[in-house]
Amino acid sequence: MAKPISFNIEKRVSDRLGRAGVINTPNGSIQTPAFVTVGTKATVKALTPEQVSELGAQVVLANTYHLYLEPGDDVLVEGGGLHKYMNWSGPTMTDSGGFQAFSLGAAFDKGVGKLIKSKDVEDERDGRKEISTDIKKLPLAKVTEDGVEFRSHIDGSKHFFTPEKSIEIQHNIGADMIFAFDECTSPTASYEYQKEAMDRTHRWAGRCLEYHKKSKNSEKQGLFGIVQGGRYEDLRKESARTIASMDFDGFGIGGSFNKEDMESAVRWVNEMLPEDKPRHLLGIGEPSDLFGGVLSGADLFDCVAPTRMARNGTLHTLDGRINITNARFARDHSSIDDSCTCYTCRNYTRSYVSHLFRAGEMLGATLASIHNLHFIVKLVADMRQAILEKDLPAFRESFEGKYYGGRC
Amino acid sequence: MAKPISFNIEKRVSDRLGRAGVINTPNGSIQTPAFVTVGTKATVKALTPEQVSELGAQVVLANTYHLYLEPGDDVLVEGGGLHKYMNWSGPTMTDSGGFQAFSLGAAFDKGVGKLIKSKDVEDERDGRKEISTDIKKLPLAKVTEDGVEFRSHIDGSKHFFTPEKSIEIQHNIGADMIFAFDECTSPTASYEYQKEAMDRTHRWAGRCLEYHKKSKNSEKQGLFGIVQGGRYEDLRKESARTIASMDFDGFGIGGSFNKEDMESAVRWVNEMLPEDKPRHLLGIGEPSDLFGGVLSGADLFDCVAPTRMARNGTLHTLDGRINITNARFARDHSSIDDSCTCYTCRNYTRSYVSHLFRAGEMLGATLASIHNLHFIVKLVADMRQAILEKDLPAFRESFEGKYYGGRC
Repeated sequence: MAKPISFNIEKRVSDRLGRAGVINTPNGSIQTPAFVTVGTKATVKALTPEQVSELGAQVVLANTYHLYLEPGDDVLVEGGGLHKYMNWSGPTMTDSGGFQAFSLGAAFDKGVGKLIKSKDVEDERDGRKEISTDIKKLPLAKVTEDGVEFRSHIDGSKHFFTPEKSIEIQHNIGADMIFAFDECTSPTASYEYQKEAMDRTHRWAGRCLEYHKKSKNSEKQGLFGIVQGGRYEDLRKESARTIASMDFDGFGIGGSFNKEDMESAVRWVNEMLPEDKPRHLLGIGEPSDLFGGVLSGADLFDCVAPTRMARNGTLHTLDGRINITNARFARDHSSIDDSCTCYTCRNYTRSYVSHLFRAGEMLGATLASIHNLHFIVKLVADMRQAILEKDLPAFRESFEGKYYGGRC
Repeated sequence: MAKPISFNIEKRVSDRLGRAGVINTPNGSIQTPAFVTVGTKATVKALTPEQVSELGAQVVLANTYHLYLEPGDDVLVEGGGLHKYMNWSGPTMTDSGGFQAFSLGAAFDKGVGKLIKSKDVEDERDGRKEISTDIKKLPLAKVTEDGVEFRSHIDGSKHFFTPEKSIEIQHNIGADMIFAFDECTSPTASYEYQKEAMDRTHRWAGRCLEYHKKSKNSEKQGLFGIVQGGRYEDLRKESARTIASMDFDGFGIGGSFNKEDMESAVRWVNEMLPEDKPRHLLGIGEPSDLFGGVLSGADLFDCVAPTRMARNGTLHTLDGRINITNARFARDHSSIDDSCTCYTCRNYTRSYVSHLFRAGEMLGATLASIHNLHFIVKLVADMRQAILEKDLPAFRESFEGKYYGGRC
């Protein structure tokens, strides 16, 4: 039986782990390294699928926790699955729901008290550190060997995710690539807790894989195992060794580490993972981190930052970030970034986008999201090109010199 | 010197005033009758210009009052004018700013006290009746022979629109078709006040025309005079006769009448207006009113209702309106309207659009706006086709029978 996901390496970065390749999925191929656009609730916020495709995105990641609660994975089954429901014909992924169950699920142990407004809630892996710290303090969700008990952030209703339940929901949603259920820990958690959570994540990984392999869905959906282990070299390596030994179609690298530890942690992991399967570094979207991740052997990245920043008017340019709502842009009739070829920069000025934001017009969020996603998707695509042309470190130096202007 | 606007009649409705024709503008032609999409602040809310064009819209109307305050007509001059600024290459119109100065301009005589939030403010000609009644009560703006004094709804700053100022601003904005400055009265105003305001509107029309003709802009922008006169037959006819005698490129028919008076008032006017110039019935978007307007000889219509309703989840179908946020649509996997060919209906289900609204996702407003605008634009285009095929009254009966189901 053919595997649903295959991966071919085209070129390697000499002396580093980085590689350019192609992931083949039942709904098309992905040229890697690639940035995965986040479509939390089966929609990339403020964009049509055509706009997502036109900006260069190859793959969309939706969130299992959100879709399970709203509209419900049963509704997605009736609607023909994620691709058809959201009108996206390219490759798709879902995460396991674990991260959101931990971070968004309202305080189970403390009663429902304060419910978060559903409109404002969104997966923010970048915020994992802060949120996880809060989890340790409160605690927000109840973890047992069997799974995670949590309350919906929408209506306070009680739910229980087990590894099997997570895979069942992801089968219902029907993305091409799905993730094993894992426990997200805080980077400030003790070594002992990190190890305990990691061991549990490994047992859950085994249960996910067993459940998945028994299903016909394993013929059309690839399951990625997640490596955890925080910032500890021995735990990261042990986790990579354990997860690598299982018959996953690809790997996720959980983001529970401090920013300064990220690159080395990813390197420890990728030195041990098999080369012939794709690796997804979860929740990373900052340019310098993307360079670090690519050079350390990660193939896929996802993050809500580009679209969330865009909705706040913060836009990427090659010279760094600008906030378009700033008064100095009201009469600036140049494009957001002169060298940018996105739909927004081809057709609109800083003045116009600035006007839309000030006037509270929705088109502002759309144009800004197109620009920011195009910027990050293209940046990672340019890293791929630089690998093919053997000058990724030089490209990094040149890009970061301009973008951070000595600030990074 | 060639006129910027020309109009050719292709076919007339026998025994009625209705006609199918073509308006030629410097930025393309408009097949009439046609529904004009409203782009209040140089953007059709929640849509890109490509989406507006793809749904079948031929022309966009922006609001002078809004653009004067934000971003400022001087910014539009710098930005190359309305077409370039908002990236719409087809025909455009601006209204005179009079209606908003009267209805949105904050209470000048009473001090600024309560400012309206700019985000929520939008031209709503449909609400003219109620707003105008309030104006009479409060009063919100100060009318003199010279013009209208008002305060910005955004920051309370004081402004004065004269007929000349309105045309100057509209020259700066640069739309293909612009309107003379008029006073909007309440349909409940006395005969005496309607006459007084009408006479003033006629004097203002003369001043607008004189100012416009002296400018080089008259070579590329057509000026439409506005007929007022409320619900009184003699005033409507006097206004039509007066405005018709002036050298305008087209005509607007002001909407200060009760719904039940509308059709006859439009008929009185159009029986007197010259046949060879286009007529725009201002602020009309309800299907039965559009039929009435077309049969009474109006060529163009505009209204914010289709997009405003859309953002509230109220959607047109051939069987009447539905609200997509209703629980019964959560598992309805059919399209919004089975017979509809719009982008939304071709690609998404009621369930998905319903999910987007419940989840507070912006794409919901986009998909709903595309559908509603397509519905109304196509309805008026179908009226045109029915005129060409000589069966408009039959089409009206068939459409209204289904749409209103005996409720109209």
